[in-house]
Amino acid sequence: MAWDFETDPEYQKVLDWADEFVRNEVEPLDLVFPHQQFVPLEGRRREAIEPLKQEVRHRGLWATHLGPELGGQGYGQLKLALLNEILGRSQWAPVVFGCQAPDTGNAEIIAHYGTEEQKKRYLQPLLDGELFSCYSMTEPHAGADPTMFKTRAVRDGDDWVINGWKFFSSNATTASFLIVMAVTNPDVSAYQGMSMFLVPTDTPGVKIERSIGLYGDPPGTGSHALIHYDNVRVPADALLGGEGQAFAIAQTRLGGGRIHHAMRTIGLARKALDMMCERALSRQTQGSRLSDKQFVQGYIADSYAQLLQFRLMVLYTAWEIDKYNDYKKVRKDIAAVKAVMPTVLHDIAWRAMQVHGALGVTDEMPFMGMITGAAVMGLADGPTEVHKATVAKQVLRDYQPSTDVWPSEWIPRKREAAVAKYAEYLEHEVGNL
Amino acid sequence: MAWDFETDPEYQKVLDWADEFVRNEVEPLDLVFPHQQFVPLEGRRREAIEPLKQEVRHRGLWATHLGPELGGQGYGQLKLALLNEILGRSQWAPVVFGCQAPDTGNAEIIAHYGTEEQKKRYLQPLLDGELFSCYSMTEPHAGADPTMFKTRAVRDGDDWVINGWKFFSSNATTASFLIVMAVTNPDVSAYQGMSMFLVPTDTPGVKIERSIGLYGDPPGTGSHALIHYDNVRVPADALLGGEGQAFAIAQTRLGGGRIHHAMRTIGLARKALDMMCERALSRQTQGSRLSDKQFVQGYIADSYAQLLQFRLMVLYTAWEIDKYNDYKKVRKDIAAVKAVMPTVLHDIAWRAMQVHGALGVTDEMPFMGMITGAAVMGLADGPTEVHKATVAKQVLRDYQPSTDVWPSEWIPRKREAAVAKYAEYLEHEVGNL
Amino acid sequence: MAWDFETDPEYQKVLDWADEFVRNEVEPLDLVFPHQQFVPLEGRRREAIEPLKQEVRHRGLWATHLGPELGGQGYGQLKLALLNEILGRSQWAPVVFGCQAPDTGNAEIIAHYGTEEQKKRYLQPLLDGELFSCYSMTEPHAGADPTMFKTRAVRDGDDWVINGWKFFSSNATTASFLIVMAVTNPDVSAYQGMSMFLVPTDTPGVKIERSIGLYGDPPGTGSHALIHYDNVRVPADALLGGEGQAFAIAQTRLGGGRIHHAMRTIGLARKALDMMCERALSRQTQGSRLSDKQFVQGYIADSYAQLLQFRLMVLYTAWEIDKYNDYKKVRKDIAAVKAVMPTVLHDIAWRAMQVHGALGVTDEMPFMGMITGAAVMGLADGPTEVHKATVAKQVLRDYQPSTDVWPSEWIPRKREAAVAKYAEYLEHEVGNL
Amino acid sequence: MAWDFETDPEYQKVLDWADEFVRNEVEPLDLVFPHQQFVPLEGRRREAIEPLKQEVRHRGLWATHLGPELGGQGYGQLKLALLNEILGRSQWAPVVFGCQAPDTGNAEIIAHYGTEEQKKRYLQPLLDGELFSCYSMTEPHAGADPTMFKTRAVRDGDDWVINGWKFFSSNATTASFLIVMAVTNPDVSAYQGMSMFLVPTDTPGVKIERSIGLYGDPPGTGSHALIHYDNVRVPADALLGGEGQAFAIAQTRLGGGRIHHAMRTIGLARKALDMMCERALSRQTQGSRLSDKQFVQGYIADSYAQLLQFRLMVLYTAWEIDKYNDYKKVRKDIAAVKAVMPTVLHDIAWRAMQVHGALGVTDEMPFMGMITGAAVMGLADGPTEVHKATVAKQVLRDYQPSTDVWPSEWIPRKREAAVAKYAEYLEHEVGNL
Repeated sequence: MAWDFETDPEYQKVLDWADEFVRNEVEPLDLVFPHQQFVPLEGRRREAIEPLKQEVRHRGLWATHLGPELGGQGYGQLKLALLNEILGRSQWAPVVFGCQAPDTGNAEIIAHYGTEEQKKRYLQPLLDGELFSCYSMTEPHAGADPTMFKTRAVRDGDDWVINGWKFFSSNATTASFLIVMAVTNPDVSAYQGMSMFLVPTDTPGVKIERSIGLYGDPPGTGSHALIHYDNVRVPADALLGGEGQAFAIAQTRLGGGRIHHAMRTIGLARKALDMMCERALSRQTQGSRLSDKQFVQGYIADSYAQLLQFRLMVLYTAWEIDKYNDYKKVRKDIAAVKAVMPTVLHDIAWRAMQVHGALGVTDEMPFMGMITGAAVMGLADGPTEVHKATVAKQVLRDYQPSTDVWPSEWIPRKREAAVAKYAEYLEHEVGNL
Repeated sequence: MAWDFETDPEYQKVLDWADEFVRNEVEPLDLVFPHQQFVPLEGRRREAIEPLKQEVRHRGLWATHLGPELGGQGYGQLKLALLNEILGRSQWAPVVFGCQAPDTGNAEIIAHYGTEEQKKRYLQPLLDGELFSCYSMTEPHAGADPTMFKTRAVRDGDDWVINGWKFFSSNATTASFLIVMAVTNPDVSAYQGMSMFLVPTDTPGVKIERSIGLYGDPPGTGSHALIHYDNVRVPADALLGGEGQAFAIAQTRLGGGRIHHAMRTIGLARKALDMMCERALSRQTQGSRLSDKQFVQGYIADSYAQLLQFRLMVLYTAWEIDKYNDYKKVRKDIAAVKAVMPTVLHDIAWRAMQVHGALGVTDEMPFMGMITGAAVMGLADGPTEVHKATVAKQVLRDYQPSTDVWPSEWIPRKREAAVAKYAEYLEHEVGNL
Repeated sequence: MAWDFETDPEYQKVLDWADEFVRNEVEPLDLVFPHQQFVPLEGRRREAIEPLKQEVRHRGLWATHLGPELGGQGYGQLKLALLNEILGRSQWAPVVFGCQAPDTGNAEIIAHYGTEEQKKRYLQPLLDGELFSCYSMTEPHAGADPTMFKTRAVRDGDDWVINGWKFFSSNATTASFLIVMAVTNPDVSAYQGMSMFLVPTDTPGVKIERSIGLYGDPPGTGSHALIHYDNVRVPADALLGGEGQAFAIAQTRLGGGRIHHAMRTIGLARKALDMMCERALSRQTQGSRLSDKQFVQGYIADSYAQLLQFRLMVLYTAWEIDKYNDYKKVRKDIAAVKAVMPTVLHDIAWRAMQVHGALGVTDEMPFMGMITGAAVMGLADGPTEVHKATVAKQVLRDYQPSTDVWPSEWIPRKREAAVAKYAEYLEHEVGNL
Repeated sequence: MAWDFETDPEYQKVLDWADEFVRNEVEPLDLVFPHQQFVPLEGRRREAIEPLKQEVRHRGLWATHLGPELGGQGYGQLKLALLNEILGRSQWAPVVFGCQAPDTGNAEIIAHYGTEEQKKRYLQPLLDGELFSCYSMTEPHAGADPTMFKTRAVRDGDDWVINGWKFFSSNATTASFLIVMAVTNPDVSAYQGMSMFLVPTDTPGVKIERSIGLYGDPPGTGSHALIHYDNVRVPADALLGGEGQAFAIAQTRLGGGRIHHAMRTIGLARKALDMMCERALSRQTQGSRLSDKQFVQGYIADSYAQLLQFRLMVLYTAWEIDKYNDYKKVRKDIAAVKAVMPTVLHDIAWRAMQVHGALGVTDEMPFMGMITGAAVMGLADGPTEVHKATVAKQVLRDYQPSTDVWPSEWIPRKREAAVAKYAEYLEHEVGNL
């Protein structure tokens, strides 16, 4: 009915359980199975993880982003946001809770556009967390602008033959299948001429040229592939949705999931703030604790205010998504969230690092990893600059140009109107302000 | 019961009315009666303003910050915040709506600590908007630190005799009375040794040495007085509350009203953003509209995101004040709001000014006035630096120092614990992350 | 011959004299004759000022920016920069030293393009400081983009008839003549179709519609005119340079003088830093001096470093101008200076204001005036955004695109080349970095 | 003689040679022998590197920071700065040019305080680049405040026995000897009670507990040791300088070398700017090159201006060191350089990364490594916060508090004085500004 900033007590209990569970059971996985979240579960590792997933299912928290028809809880984005704040602290948590990107978005588009056969083959095991998927869209020369993509799929009998290069195809090495965007009709605009294909990773001609790591990834753990599609032949039913629908599908994919990273970023940034505060209380230098130094107090205050404000914006946007269920109405705030996100994480993690002194820059503390993550957030799903332009364009929709050379708030004209309005009450002439 | 970011429809109608009313009736007052909000209403000016106040009373929006026992609506801070966003656009609006600082805070402490006689003499006409008051606390040498105050009140028979200097006593020239903080017992700590006095402005010995203007105030309109209290003799019943209670009273005063400025700042910043957007759509240069330039898009996007986040933080804090009714619980967020406020207004107004080109820096547009206002916000009620320190200290209350030389999130120790926990599932030794 | 950061001792003595002279004789003029620098000298005011100008002439410091052929010293930009740092502290100082904008630039173009007759009539008294001039170029709808100007000059017999509007024509009310840019041939590009006219201010049809003040200017002192040229008839010899030469003339004007504002900004910013430091040492709060608080130490350190760096860049650019005498070679650094200038002054003045507490925002201290000045600096001679674009374009001239899809510093390729180069020395394969 | 911003042509030729040499011969070493600069040269690696060092010696560029008495060229800091700008691009370059930290500083103190015997044993091979050294000062609990150090050295017969923990002892694993700061007299102030010891790394009891990597260092290449000195027994002649002299020695060490990192940072930041520019010209998106987008132009302009200003400040400070040869006189600017340095590198590298899109955050580009380096720069040799406090304290030495409650620039008082001074010329009263 009206403004409320509180979680209902029942769901709060659920969150409290998740918080404990992630802290005790899941965060340690990041340290014993680092960089392996997207490696299909086998052997002893499966034995370790499977019971955790079962526990999550048992608590009704598996894949909560999905509607009931897909086996999820249909909790909506706001509840998911509150949960994701907790999951954001751990690399493994989203996998354990069945809501890891990019599989969430990939599942979404198969659910929406897939045939029954495609859903059976790809969607169900994806939802079950039994396999992983890769969204293979960006090209080496093209970045965030799909109109420049060159990868081609050509019809050859009942098959399609795909040729081209894709870059930053995350998880390609461990994924069971790739979702590939390719030009099927070069004679029309890119918005009509591209199609989406479901390509099993072991299809002949899928050549992973390099598997690139983010800075800081240990050698051999890089998971962002440069893929050469070299005469990759797939049958007609590999097409997802109709011919020429790739753009529409890509839009769908970006809609819902766009602020999941932001939700998790809150959790990560809070972790950094927590560490900053603990450290500030723990260290003495030059006669007093760090927490007594104004520089450090400034770091804490700025970080707290930045995080509180960002969190409220993310929750507000999640609430809007739930309320309007209309991407167009929420696009502005989604873009604002994405534009702000990298800075929030960067700033708080950087200050936390600084407060830790030399220890902060080592690989014994997570700060530079968070900062690298902030950089990734500023580039994944489109760079910050694109989101800013989107925000501006959406904001400007609500305005009109002024009708003449002076702004509508130009004081001389407004004063003139005001004087006319209140003329009878003016005892003397009105001068300048 | 749970997260909601919407105003209930009935109150929204009230706000919509207020928005129109302020735009049409009140904002013009700023231009025809500039700098006269705190001059008691007389003659033709009274005839102009009084009906507006009546209309506000009629709509039930007079002094909504006050509880019903004081003739207000007891709407609470959240509803007031939503209203204050509207009032913030106009200098006159708070006066027309009976909720202008510093009179709100002054009324509050008289209501709380005043005798019946004091209430009758000062409070009722204050609530009616029939007179104005001045809070005379800061001293020329002492700024925001009351422990350094030197103004003395000495008991002399039935009277008190006050001597000293006060600085930045706003509205002193037009106020009917002054609330003066003075040392009554220099032998104890300042926290126990200061008392508060209600002093009619026309008491002999009250010498307004200079009435200082903010930068940009036209000559002669300065309203921040340097006052010399030169043997000012007041009767015993001029004491507000008990002897030595000045600190407690001052705290009370700062509690409730602390974010009213922030609420109004939202309205002012939005006005600047509105003007920025109109201008961006209205002006062409070098072949395209300003709104098509990325620099300007960046200004709009940054301003939108900054304002949205700040607004949510202010509303959240207002909601907390209503919910907890306990200053201690909300102190952190009140301080955060006050620390962030000047930057939000400064940044948005500055960008709006820049987008207006040379016109933006003239006295025909309100931007430099807003920026001066942002500077004032960063100093009134204590400087930003003090609020940051407060935020940090409050945040740190929730943390403990680590128990040894390494932080609790130190990876080697956490890895060791994780390995111990999951030892049975580890097929090989765990290396570095 | 090589790097040297010192002023030669002889000129340093000159500067020392100027420093004392400005402090003792000139700065007081700002307070007794405020906003009157551009009012022609008469009566008692002339008696006060004239001896100061004589003293400057006597010391060889009059109009040092001018070459000897124009009666100046031809000192060059670097020496002028060192002098201008001193003059920048005072509104009156440039006038007393014969080097005030916009008259310097105006004199320059008349010297360069004027006929003997024009020089005699306008240039000599301008150089003597006996009259003032106004550069009337910007139009209300067009800002910094001359291709959009609409003011027309049409040949009518031996005369030209000028019609149109000009905005922000500074000093128009007190200037003896206006330099007006007008379209003389609308059928060619603006770069060829505009001409420059010398128009006595008292020519019939020159209508100063409003004389606009910067925010903070007292009523009636505004000096930036909106001018309506309403059938202003001037004889053929009012044309400055040839028909269609306005652009070339405007470029000339912008060349030399472009960093004079920056030079003076250094002096103003240093004054703010000086005041910040004095205040930090003078005020106590909460048990220690402001200078002992880290927040304030941060303000001082940041301001010092910002100013030192900016000063060196300005001096370097001045040195480049002297050395190359070629605008094209120095354009990049001139633009960089202009892009950085407003921020330096804004930041330092803002911090100084903050350290002064409530006093800082009043009209009893100069800070908000400095901040307004910083805003003006960010718009005069083109907005900061334009200067940034210029810097980028000039910087980019020195670069080539990479020859393929990967950057030339792309590590895999560089590693491959390095391995090939040092193959014989490698005992084992080189892995990833 | 006077301001000059140019390198003399002869030395410029030397620099040009170095630039080519580093680009062609040295930079590839970073890729084929990564993280091995401080591993003593042996086998094939020695064969590769030794000729390069010979070439440097032959060109007279070996160890130019050293005076002739130590086999260097005594070029001074300014020439070294110009050279170090070039060396900064490569990890290996300082080693190849014989001027790598921390060995430079370590050599310096041995040269200054060592006995002949110590010099022969440690200094000469250090100067020859035949062994490496480790400065073992910081302790795990103490960071940048030596008064908190706890490592003890106790006299036992002719020996000293050292016990304690040292943190972040860089290069300890490959160094031949450690310079250890230890408390020898706990009964006096830390400034008198600590001594410096030269300890061969293979001395029994020197236990390298962990060799910690910076974030991004491949596993096993970490070079910052946590060392347990566990009853480490050294003979009396292991003492460097006199007993209790550790503080004085540490100061010496910090004096000269303090801006070498800054010099090299210029080179690294320029490399990032170069890459940003190439990329901006190379990539198209949404219809135009990145270099045509204002956001990117802003990045380039801001980076150029930031780097130009920083470079001039570093060269100025180097010039001051050469000129004054007095640490006290240059301390302010050294601290300013160190305070600004991390931000310059961070900002430029971050923007360059952003312009590279997803590729920018991978380990195939150097940006996150540069950013990590910026973070290290903000902590090594004391954190940025300490340098800011130093700048402020040094700046404040030149100021006096005002003599009364109002600042000396307080306008009312200055106006009064001005009016008195110019009274005879004032035709009417002077109002407010």
